[in-house]
Amino acid sequence: MAKLLPHIKGPQDLKGLNIKQLEQLAEEIRITMINTVSETGGHLAPNLGMVELTIALHQVFDSPVDKFVFDVGHQSYVHKLLTGRQDRFDTLRQYGGLSGFPKYQESEHDVFNTGHSSTSISAALGLALARDKKKEDYHVVGIIGDGALTGGMAFEALNHAGHLGTNLIIILNDNEMSIASNVGALSSYLTRMRSDPMYYKGKEEIEHLLKRLPAGGKVLKVMDRLKDSLKYLVVPGMLFEELGFTYFGPVDGHNFSSLKSVLQSAKKSKGPVLVHVLTTKGKGYKPAEENPDLFHGIGPFDVKTGTPKKSAGPPKYTQVFSDTLREIARQNEKIVAVTAAMPGGTGIDKFAEEFPDRAYDVGIAEQHAVTMSAGLAAGGFKPVVAVYSTFLQRAYDQILHDVCLQNLPVVFALDRAGIVGDDGETHQGLFDFAYLRNIPRMVIMAPKDENELRHMLYTAVEYDGPIALRYPRGQGVGVPMEDSLHRLPIGQGEVLREGKDMSIIAVGNRVYPSLEAAELLAAEGIDAAVINARFVKPLDAELIISQAEKTGRVLTVEEHVLAGGFGSAVLELLALKGISVEIYNLAVPDEFVQHGQADIFRRKYRLDAAGIAETVKQRFFSQSKVKHIWQRG
Amino acid sequence: MAKLLPHIKGPQDLKGLNIKQLEQLAEEIRITMINTVSETGGHLAPNLGMVELTIALHQVFDSPVDKFVFDVGHQSYVHKLLTGRQDRFDTLRQYGGLSGFPKYQESEHDVFNTGHSSTSISAALGLALARDKKKEDYHVVGIIGDGALTGGMAFEALNHAGHLGTNLIIILNDNEMSIASNVGALSSYLTRMRSDPMYYKGKEEIEHLLKRLPAGGKVLKVMDRLKDSLKYLVVPGMLFEELGFTYFGPVDGHNFSSLKSVLQSAKKSKGPVLVHVLTTKGKGYKPAEENPDLFHGIGPFDVKTGTPKKSAGPPKYTQVFSDTLREIARQNEKIVAVTAAMPGGTGIDKFAEEFPDRAYDVGIAEQHAVTMSAGLAAGGFKPVVAVYSTFLQRAYDQILHDVCLQNLPVVFALDRAGIVGDDGETHQGLFDFAYLRNIPRMVIMAPKDENELRHMLYTAVEYDGPIALRYPRGQGVGVPMEDSLHRLPIGQGEVLREGKDMSIIAVGNRVYPSLEAAELLAAEGIDAAVINARFVKPLDAELIISQAEKTGRVLTVEEHVLAGGFGSAVLELLALKGISVEIYNLAVPDEFVQHGQADIFRRKYRLDAAGIAETVKQRFFSQSKVKHIWQRG
Repeated sequence: MAKLLPHIKGPQDLKGLNIKQLEQLAEEIRITMINTVSETGGHLAPNLGMVELTIALHQVFDSPVDKFVFDVGHQSYVHKLLTGRQDRFDTLRQYGGLSGFPKYQESEHDVFNTGHSSTSISAALGLALARDKKKEDYHVVGIIGDGALTGGMAFEALNHAGHLGTNLIIILNDNEMSIASNVGALSSYLTRMRSDPMYYKGKEEIEHLLKRLPAGGKVLKVMDRLKDSLKYLVVPGMLFEELGFTYFGPVDGHNFSSLKSVLQSAKKSKGPVLVHVLTTKGKGYKPAEENPDLFHGIGPFDVKTGTPKKSAGPPKYTQVFSDTLREIARQNEKIVAVTAAMPGGTGIDKFAEEFPDRAYDVGIAEQHAVTMSAGLAAGGFKPVVAVYSTFLQRAYDQILHDVCLQNLPVVFALDRAGIVGDDGETHQGLFDFAYLRNIPRMVIMAPKDENELRHMLYTAVEYDGPIALRYPRGQGVGVPMEDSLHRLPIGQGEVLREGKDMSIIAVGNRVYPSLEAAELLAAEGIDAAVINARFVKPLDAELIISQAEKTGRVLTVEEHVLAGGFGSAVLELLALKGISVEIYNLAVPDEFVQHGQADIFRRKYRLDAAGIAETVKQRFFSQSKVKHIWQRG
Repeated sequence: MAKLLPHIKGPQDLKGLNIKQLEQLAEEIRITMINTVSETGGHLAPNLGMVELTIALHQVFDSPVDKFVFDVGHQSYVHKLLTGRQDRFDTLRQYGGLSGFPKYQESEHDVFNTGHSSTSISAALGLALARDKKKEDYHVVGIIGDGALTGGMAFEALNHAGHLGTNLIIILNDNEMSIASNVGALSSYLTRMRSDPMYYKGKEEIEHLLKRLPAGGKVLKVMDRLKDSLKYLVVPGMLFEELGFTYFGPVDGHNFSSLKSVLQSAKKSKGPVLVHVLTTKGKGYKPAEENPDLFHGIGPFDVKTGTPKKSAGPPKYTQVFSDTLREIARQNEKIVAVTAAMPGGTGIDKFAEEFPDRAYDVGIAEQHAVTMSAGLAAGGFKPVVAVYSTFLQRAYDQILHDVCLQNLPVVFALDRAGIVGDDGETHQGLFDFAYLRNIPRMVIMAPKDENELRHMLYTAVEYDGPIALRYPRGQGVGVPMEDSLHRLPIGQGEVLREGKDMSIIAVGNRVYPSLEAAELLAAEGIDAAVINARFVKPLDAELIISQAEKTGRVLTVEEHVLAGGFGSAVLELLALKGISVEIYNLAVPDEFVQHGQADIFRRKYRLDAAGIAETVKQRFFSQSKVKHIWQRG
């Protein structure tokens, strides 16, 4: 059978296809996605669930005149394949290649960039209001998962959209999953609609029954009043109807006829509409259907078996965090763990297995996660909130207002801090020092390696106040692991290498490259001290000042933006103390970092050993100076 | 009649009072609050609506064994009067006096500090979970307004609490108001419950009707099936029931018998409970009932007439912003205004009057406000999001992820920036430079006076990218106002005073005190230049560097925390350029600023003219140096 997908240059090429052809196309798209993601890694399971829905959306609506906003964005692969990006699909998530998320820079079919969860209804409402103001006529469609619907801002948007009554179509892609299994009462509500036909056929059923009742006399009168009351019967999607939306569904999200029919109805409706579509995460690829959490976001894997290609080497930071947290929790029953729909990604899953009564997955709800943890801390417990650095941005206000203002002992474990790599600009963990550092009372740490992570976590749970530790995505450095845990003195760094010509003060995963850089510099006659800062707040003022005064030259190194980061804190300290030295801050510049392997960007921003050494030479040692020092040595 | 209130030393003294006595007590409390707030200013209307409810809560529950969490906190005055703080009530919101919000530092009856909206359910859930883990037995009660319920994190918490099934009592204080009139579909939903008895008596009614139907044969069979279906009838509070809460209400929040009865029932219930209480904002004080928005948060006023005591002098920044925005909007139809439940406080109310189709009050929903604005901007409009600096903290992630990543032209107007005064630590606008400055592409301005605010707003709406301006609470400086508006060059400051001995680089409302300080210094022989930075990002690199090189001494001055603020940005710039000068950053130190008149804290932190001058002398000019310069002059 001739392939169809290569002939789909844009949505217009879908219009003439019949159901059978669409089904063939769906199959081809699945194969393409499975093969590509098995090489590139990516969000496979969500996209496998979206194949028929995306095709149907493009058949019924006219992108780019009609506008699609894909919530969280990582389920837009099918959309990319249908909108002229097949040829580049094998560059997915690679440096310079296609993004794993919608990007207006890539295509006119991507009208609004997404990455974080629960933004689509707000964005789509804004686009719809703009359309109405310009008196233009097209459809704005937000596509949101049931997991993303637990994010508070989705509710804020539903509440406002329902109030305004603007024409707006929201597709609820209900796969009973956020990333892991879904949590929350809303999820149960959706499940009831899925599983209990009586529940959503209530009204029809009762009307039918009433018609069969004998008429006449007293019965008739009672009947009339009953019918009046029927408007209050639960109709399917009552919750959404109460919020001002017209509800359609639930509909089978893998059946083209049903999908097209319901989307046509939605298209004709006025006001805000919610279409409830039931899909299966991982649909059509058995390993993904059976293990959708694993295949939510996955690295390269073997297509036949679905087995991830293992990378040998040191344990991942996440794993060390997870193991250590359980180790500590066995001794300290005050420890509870909180995650926001990321049990697997953060390693809280294993904690939940071992301590089911002490783990909370609150759903995609970082704000609630933090303030509930503040409540737990006020009640005498020690919550460890494990969230990716980029997602904790959602809870900046709660950290400040609910945790730090009350000096509550909440531990923030920020995974995926620094440059995250393939996910790209929406997911970079490059702002956490800055957004945490301005908050009084917050303590901020970053370990140089996976062994230090263990001690920092122990230090954090022993500390009586708000404290954060941030560590990178991926594998550790490969250092020997100490069995016993000890408390690190708060605000105390360590000298890893003495040096008389200058001081490299590094933090987190930039400490080892700084040590390597010092070796490179030593070979050129520059004797650089290397300091592991450990703490971004409070700084080790004594150590930093003594180093600055000793060598007169300071380079700070961090995997974080320059503005407001660690280097900035060192500058503040020196200015406060009136110490004037040659200083340079090596950090990520004031720009958003794209997708691609993290090391590419570390090289680009001179944050690797070679770049650090080069920076030292350029900034502090002119050629003559280098010679001078060399001769002196 | 003998006064009762003076005898209420704590909640235990309420227990024996009968309804008539309670009513007398309520009256006394109202009089006390009206008289006090007429002198101190404060949140009068919300507290007047809470009198009976708070008394009833303290009668039915046993604080501090049972825990109350008051959402947004400003409606805790009655609670303070009943928990041993009468004697100090006249110090409300004064420096060193009682806070206008719950403070665990004040009383064991304040178990969780609040200030920002929508945190109470999360906090209460955390406390309830802690209680269960400790196998303790008491009640945790969250009290939340219908306005606060529109905040997304309240929904996140409801969703999670409903899922967990923990014993938890949420009191919904429904006054149909957030601060101004409430918006949103949820509000309409609550209104339907208030107004349509049929709506919430549906189930009872139908069951009653069914009983009257003739029984037997076919009818009986149909009847049985009908009864099955009845479980799906809309019961009152179905929306909350769907989320897993047991719903009680609605109940008259000014009727002691009803309140006590419903609270007793809630107390006996298992699992999460929501009690829907109907109150009147401003209850019992006619001016406040008639104008609850004005009396939400009010300065001193005349008790007899309810007229605010006018302060003569320059217009308020808010008013200048409001007037200027309308002026610009008359010429530029792309401008739309967005506020989050603060139309009056931000001056968007007048905009909405003049341009009803171009103003959006989204409710207490800052996250949605920002991302919806991103959508409006993507659709070709120029949204001006007017939010208090402290509340925009809620939308840090949305500013970064939805606005700046796409370089969308959204204008952020941050009112109440800097030290806010009487509201105190939860409401300080002292973090905005830091939380905005780390975001690539963001432009940040702060006007030195109300006239510059006009030009900055014009500059902002003409700029094609994300841009923020932040201005203080209260009155302007009193400068002449220019009629015409002009664009300020992005990233360009101005020299206000030439000087050869040192450079004071100030921003925002610290520019005029810096000029005054320069005069004070001049009298002592120190010739200080004064620079109005205007932009915190991008900095005027050329001007700052030339000044630094010229005088060799730089003092930065800002009403903002030191960490990551404006001074920090200047340090980063100088380090980047390799310029070494004597520099000191005058800013708010790393601590939370309490309540009290703003000028008290400006003095305390040496941010007033005298403090600035003093700092200059201490940091840059030892006694001998001063003499030397003086002699030189």
